[in-house]
Amino acid sequence: MRILVSNDDGYNALGIEALAKALHGLGELTVVAPETNCSGSSNSLTLNRPLSVRQAPNGYFFINGTPSDCVHIALTGLLDFRPDLVVSGINNGANLGDDTLYSGTVAAATEGYLFGIPAIAFSLVKRGWEHLETAAQVARQIVAHHVEQPIDAKVLLNVNIPAVPYEALDGIHVTRLGKRHPSEPVVKTTTPYGDPVYWIGPVGNVSDAASDTDFGAIENNRVSVTPLRLDLTYHEQLDAVRGWAGPLCVNR
Amino acid sequence: MRILVSNDDGYNALGIEALAKALHGLGELTVVAPETNCSGSSNSLTLNRPLSVRQAPNGYFFINGTPSDCVHIALTGLLDFRPDLVVSGINNGANLGDDTLYSGTVAAATEGYLFGIPAIAFSLVKRGWEHLETAAQVARQIVAHHVEQPIDAKVLLNVNIPAVPYEALDGIHVTRLGKRHPSEPVVKTTTPYGDPVYWIGPVGNVSDAASDTDFGAIENNRVSVTPLRLDLTYHEQLDAVRGWAGPLCVNR
Amino acid sequence: MRILVSNDDGYNALGIEALAKALHGLGELTVVAPETNCSGSSNSLTLNRPLSVRQAPNGYFFINGTPSDCVHIALTGLLDFRPDLVVSGINNGANLGDDTLYSGTVAAATEGYLFGIPAIAFSLVKRGWEHLETAAQVARQIVAHHVEQPIDAKVLLNVNIPAVPYEALDGIHVTRLGKRHPSEPVVKTTTPYGDPVYWIGPVGNVSDAASDTDFGAIENNRVSVTPLRLDLTYHEQLDAVRGWAGPLCVNR
Amino acid sequence: MRILVSNDDGYNALGIEALAKALHGLGELTVVAPETNCSGSSNSLTLNRPLSVRQAPNGYFFINGTPSDCVHIALTGLLDFRPDLVVSGINNGANLGDDTLYSGTVAAATEGYLFGIPAIAFSLVKRGWEHLETAAQVARQIVAHHVEQPIDAKVLLNVNIPAVPYEALDGIHVTRLGKRHPSEPVVKTTTPYGDPVYWIGPVGNVSDAASDTDFGAIENNRVSVTPLRLDLTYHEQLDAVRGWAGPLCVNR
Repeated sequence: MRILVSNDDGYNALGIEALAKALHGLGELTVVAPETNCSGSSNSLTLNRPLSVRQAPNGYFFINGTPSDCVHIALTGLLDFRPDLVVSGINNGANLGDDTLYSGTVAAATEGYLFGIPAIAFSLVKRGWEHLETAAQVARQIVAHHVEQPIDAKVLLNVNIPAVPYEALDGIHVTRLGKRHPSEPVVKTTTPYGDPVYWIGPVGNVSDAASDTDFGAIENNRVSVTPLRLDLTYHEQLDAVRGWAGPLCVNR
Repeated sequence: MRILVSNDDGYNALGIEALAKALHGLGELTVVAPETNCSGSSNSLTLNRPLSVRQAPNGYFFINGTPSDCVHIALTGLLDFRPDLVVSGINNGANLGDDTLYSGTVAAATEGYLFGIPAIAFSLVKRGWEHLETAAQVARQIVAHHVEQPIDAKVLLNVNIPAVPYEALDGIHVTRLGKRHPSEPVVKTTTPYGDPVYWIGPVGNVSDAASDTDFGAIENNRVSVTPLRLDLTYHEQLDAVRGWAGPLCVNR
Repeated sequence: MRILVSNDDGYNALGIEALAKALHGLGELTVVAPETNCSGSSNSLTLNRPLSVRQAPNGYFFINGTPSDCVHIALTGLLDFRPDLVVSGINNGANLGDDTLYSGTVAAATEGYLFGIPAIAFSLVKRGWEHLETAAQVARQIVAHHVEQPIDAKVLLNVNIPAVPYEALDGIHVTRLGKRHPSEPVVKTTTPYGDPVYWIGPVGNVSDAASDTDFGAIENNRVSVTPLRLDLTYHEQLDAVRGWAGPLCVNR
Repeated sequence: MRILVSNDDGYNALGIEALAKALHGLGELTVVAPETNCSGSSNSLTLNRPLSVRQAPNGYFFINGTPSDCVHIALTGLLDFRPDLVVSGINNGANLGDDTLYSGTVAAATEGYLFGIPAIAFSLVKRGWEHLETAAQVARQIVAHHVEQPIDAKVLLNVNIPAVPYEALDGIHVTRLGKRHPSEPVVKTTTPYGDPVYWIGPVGNVSDAASDTDFGAIENNRVSVTPLRLDLTYHEQLDAVRGWAGPLCVNR
């Protein structure tokens, strides 16, 4: 089992170190991660400049690009083998509900999945690394289970782990993504030089935290595991859109 | 009808100018777009610095951030009204199949959709702006149709327009997203100072261009309209993943 | 007379447009300027990525790099001729005293000077473009004078223009650079996400504004013209340092 | 003796680690350095966003900004004391002649000097860290000498060390800056997506390597120590420029 490890907090973040240590012995690990924190980078790919690959004293490769860049370069040229699994994280904070769209942690796993490799993103739901060891232990359990008994499907799993002592966890739940209310308003402020600037506001409050959602699981101290798909086609809407677009098609 | 216009090629790109002109008279237009080209930016949000909003002589607002930043700031603080429609583009190049995941053009529309506003992304499938007027005319048709007869659903439409004369178009097709083969390998090169660097490789060739896909439509000189969804939950996989994860849940 | 025009506020700033218009008819103008605002960029050169050169509808070239990048690329490959003069500005704010070290406006001129071309940097001392027309008129006078009667030396001139009506100007003074007190302290603040961040503080107050300095000239509504040199060697200190370093040289 | 250590290659570069180790015991060291490689950054200050200060496991502070940012923030808010000396380096490559203008290593020292603190920049003249131990040993000698017998002047010293075994060094020379020929032409190339891009060309060949210059010293395996000044006024040109500008002053 060859495992590619990445993240979005950067190769020197505590979360990726904890993840790599937790997976020790489960396979041959290669770490390829961003040089700097890329939170919020989504699936962004760097297309307007070339990227540098360097190696830290601990053997980790780091790239001056995004999480997607890292996994993309690893899979299309840097590594001379094809990994059997891509893992990403442990993220410093939650990736729940629609947040997954913006997440660089999920994006790193996504890039592996798009290349046909099973992929798992791990996030510790509270920022600040408290109870990182819980997330590390859960990550090891899940990867170990996959090593012993690979899941019978091409999967991209989004795993969020409550920031509580391991003993306080109430199991692992397979969930759907919940929903948030819209984000908080932008925060308008002024630079020390007198110019107005805007910060993107914090995320909104949770609006759908039903018990079968990721938010619901986390609220109940459960590890949330959500399988993700990347076929963005809204199949159920095709007929409605066809109906609506009919006149357009005819008019020409 | 109040329409928010954005893109990912930057506020001074030919595509957004053509789009704004094409929509003239269909509603009250406000343009909020990135200061510079953000191709490949996906849904990336800028969280590590505040953003500046400025206005060009032609009235367009531009922001030193990503497409998602632009629409997010417009909707959460810059505009004193809620748009009825968000349009994005016209992109310099195709956004088909899995490329939509990386697209900043689609991301700008996505941000509107996440706030509950119908949104449409327009892309001209060949880079270089040839036959931009075709895309502009199609964009006007589609938006005008939406103005007259709003579609009866919350939609995020991904529209790709062949780069051919308008007369050569063979209608509008509602499609699902097709597939590409994996990307080309990274391109390894050397800087003038002797350092090795890697360029993300070009996209792969098309692997699924069936006639009901966006690729298939484009191949046949048809405008492709694909409704997108952003619920990333892989509902059909939930049971399989629950089965697989069972022992994990029990073991604890 | 072929004149290369650049700046640090970006190719779409009011200052460079005013400068180019003011110089109309004095020579053949080519504008090559940064795509975005590069204030504070000093002589920074971009060495870790290649740069794109594009042309705006008005004929200005713009580059996704620093002021030094722009002039460097213009002189070493983009232009098929060697300019007779490099002008930079009109900057949105003063470049006086030690500020010149950090100035991108001065850096653009510096790059020309290093290639052996006379160069002049123009700055309007108050931010906000008030009385930009005064600076434009002064710039034209100075360049016109240089065209008629080229100065008999290789020069790099740093010109600062008071933000007052032209009639209120009290002539042009050739000055030395004055001094400021150290900068204001950093401004510590917190992001909307709770992280501490630091803004570089505003510049310090003036400490040497003697009448023969640039600060002194500006205080008296005079245009300040300071010839700059780029030989950083502190010749007057060579003996003192040799004395001090003597034991080091011997000990080996 | 409290010593602030910075560089431009980033806090995790081999050069700064070698420098900090070499200075061990000579004073109380604090390292504040850029998060990533900032070669070519000159005196660039970051004014359009706030900066983050973090601390690595080894105690080094790192900032997502330029070398000037690092020293500026250290001196104006981060440190609760005023250092007695600022050292920068050991740079991965030479900073000789006019290159010093572009150097981030020299800029870090410059920032200290502008705040009235003696400052020394150390560079290993060949890229690749070969014989880094030689540079480290020389840095220790020079700083130790300054600790024992502080130089009787406010100094900014630019030190370049040949990349040879320590035994092969032929002493320390106090020099003036030499000169280079203009840079090599830009390197025009094409991205994998077909877009033309330009790399800033390599530096030019040496044109003034007289024995009293830094280039001359290095050619002879001597450590070069050049005192720098930052008064950019070209005092010797003031009269010539006054003569030339006379008509301008009168005409108004």
